Amino acid sequence: MGIDGFIIENPIDIAYFTSLKLSRGRLLISKRAVVLFVDGRYTIQAKKGSPFPVKKLGNDELGAVLKSWVGTKYFGFDTGLSIAAHQSFKSIFTKHKKKLKGFDQPTLKVRAVKDSKELVALKKSAGLLWKGFEHIRKKLKEGVSEIEISREFEFYVKKLGAEALSFEPIVAFGENSALPHYHSGARKLKKGDVVLLDIGVVLNGYASDMTRIVFFGKVSKQIEELYQVVKSAHKAALQKCMAGEVVANLDKAARKAMGKEEKHFVHALGHGIGLNVHEYPRISSELRKVKLEEGMVITIEPGLYLPGIGGIRYEDMIVITKTGYRNFFKETRP
Amino acid sequence: MGIDGFIIENPIDIAYFTSLKLSRGRLLISKRAVVLFVDGRYTIQAKKGSPFPVKKLGNDELGAVLKSWVGTKYFGFDTGLSIAAHQSFKSIFTKHKKKLKGFDQPTLKVRAVKDSKELVALKKSAGLLWKGFEHIRKKLKEGVSEIEISREFEFYVKKLGAEALSFEPIVAFGENSALPHYHSGARKLKKGDVVLLDIGVVLNGYASDMTRIVFFGKVSKQIEELYQVVKSAHKAALQKCMAGEVVANLDKAARKAMGKEEKHFVHALGHGIGLNVHEYPRISSELRKVKLEEGMVITIEPGLYLPGIGGIRYEDMIVITKTGYRNFFKETRP
Repeated sequence: MGIDGFIIENPIDIAYFTSLKLSRGRLLISKRAVVLFVDGRYTIQAKKGSPFPVKKLGNDELGAVLKSWVGTKYFGFDTGLSIAAHQSFKSIFTKHKKKLKGFDQPTLKVRAVKDSKELVALKKSAGLLWKGFEHIRKKLKEGVSEIEISREFEFYVKKLGAEALSFEPIVAFGENSALPHYHSGARKLKKGDVVLLDIGVVLNGYASDMTRIVFFGKVSKQIEELYQVVKSAHKAALQKCMAGEVVANLDKAARKAMGKEEKHFVHALGHGIGLNVHEYPRISSELRKVKLEEGMVITIEPGLYLPGIGGIRYEDMIVITKTGYRNFFKETRP
Repeated sequence: MGIDGFIIENPIDIAYFTSLKLSRGRLLISKRAVVLFVDGRYTIQAKKGSPFPVKKLGNDELGAVLKSWVGTKYFGFDTGLSIAAHQSFKSIFTKHKKKLKGFDQPTLKVRAVKDSKELVALKKSAGLLWKGFEHIRKKLKEGVSEIEISREFEFYVKKLGAEALSFEPIVAFGENSALPHYHSGARKLKKGDVVLLDIGVVLNGYASDMTRIVFFGKVSKQIEELYQVVKSAHKAALQKCMAGEVVANLDKAARKAMGKEEKHFVHALGHGIGLNVHEYPRISSELRKVKLEEGMVITIEPGLYLPGIGGIRYEDMIVITKTGYRNFFKETRP
């Protein structure tokens, strides 16, 4: 079954295709034409900035366009849409004798391979993140709290032009680093703590993401050794990174390098990144048939967590090339 | 058809029922028991903080619980869930001979009426917003840019303990105020500008939301008059606010007060607010059968927009009482 068109309602997808930031809208795409539907809040912006004709967001308007597109029959939609959203347009397609078919992350698959303009934007985003990292690394002093370091990062990168953070910074001291998705709190830094910094910024719409570990004074031997295991897993995964490699093989290589510690690896190895901080593909054992492509930007972030003791994660953002990869970040040692 | 249980996957709903902040999880509720399912990232936090038994997030685990709940048959889900999420659990319910039925915003309807603890949290959130408003009002000086005022608000309230903003502040000078969902930019403030400030903070999980207008110097007569029309619409809507009133009547009263300017009113009159900045009920003409209830917290925000010239919006957050309402904010004049 060939697809004649697509209905898109995810605001980030709409931004990808139109460069317009709307909190709500609808894009109808076919081989012959594209129409953007917006509500009253966005009429002025859309008429000024949209590369496509703009119509009012409503089912009558959708119906009129579908009716006028003679010869089209099959339309795709993203199964990431809500059931309610699907229900709201389904009957209009049926009324005009069009068929709908759901696809898993269809736009994210298109968005996975970045063009040169996007790669420049991602590099700038990563560059700003790095500046923020260097800034907060200097602020790690005895008695400072996690939330203070988190806010320091946020205010610094926003003053330098970040429009947002990719996510709330994860600044975790000591035993808190064992919680992979920790919310930074009042815990104060003390000598001998391991420090986990998982940070990201959004610049010109594009997200960046990086995790680094700092040893504040002398950490336990157990944590030191854990760091070495994570670094070797990270290296093993990077060695697999090149166009044509099967995604699941990255996960496999990382796990092999972890040896008996692998049981403490409780999340995916990485993820695509672009307009969203989490994009296709998820770097995990599930993707046994998906291959890396030139221009994909992904993170590689093995992590090992010892409950009550501490955790280590080391994360880079890389772009896949024909023969390997380019890293957006520099290597650091704890 | 009676409902024996509910499956919940929205992270904010999960936070509402468990007080746990998870980016992903699943809550299965029945009259007899509640089970929380989380993935490896959240095992430690959930086992420590969940008021309900915790199991691994997976379809086998879901199936085992459904099987053990003898005598249950009908389960509800939120049609706000993604089609993909629904697909992922549907077959498990079918396998165990349970029936699924979709509901429109079922949890948001439960969450619409706030208990006393929530009202305290909302009052604190609104109090912090107000402090931020008073702070940035003093920063309005000739030559300052919209984005500077926006960041000033953000950094100030975050230093005072806000964990996030409810949304990117809308700081719009002059003609930019005519765009209801404007993104603050480099536009500098000049004498005679109308200033629109739509701001909100999140404190202890609860969002606040307020819009105020400042006249920076002497504005045009047209803008002055528009302000009076919006204020009268705001007042008319507030007069309808009390338990038992039909929601659509608030919208009707505001529109009537707008008179011939009503054609410039391009968005809803308001919305419920709580853990999300936009909650049920949407205050609009559509809700002709829904009545306000004691304990509902809503915004009232009439706005009129003259493209290329300027716009006025005035927004309060109120709690509905038996005989009227209490306002979270004080009245200001431009």
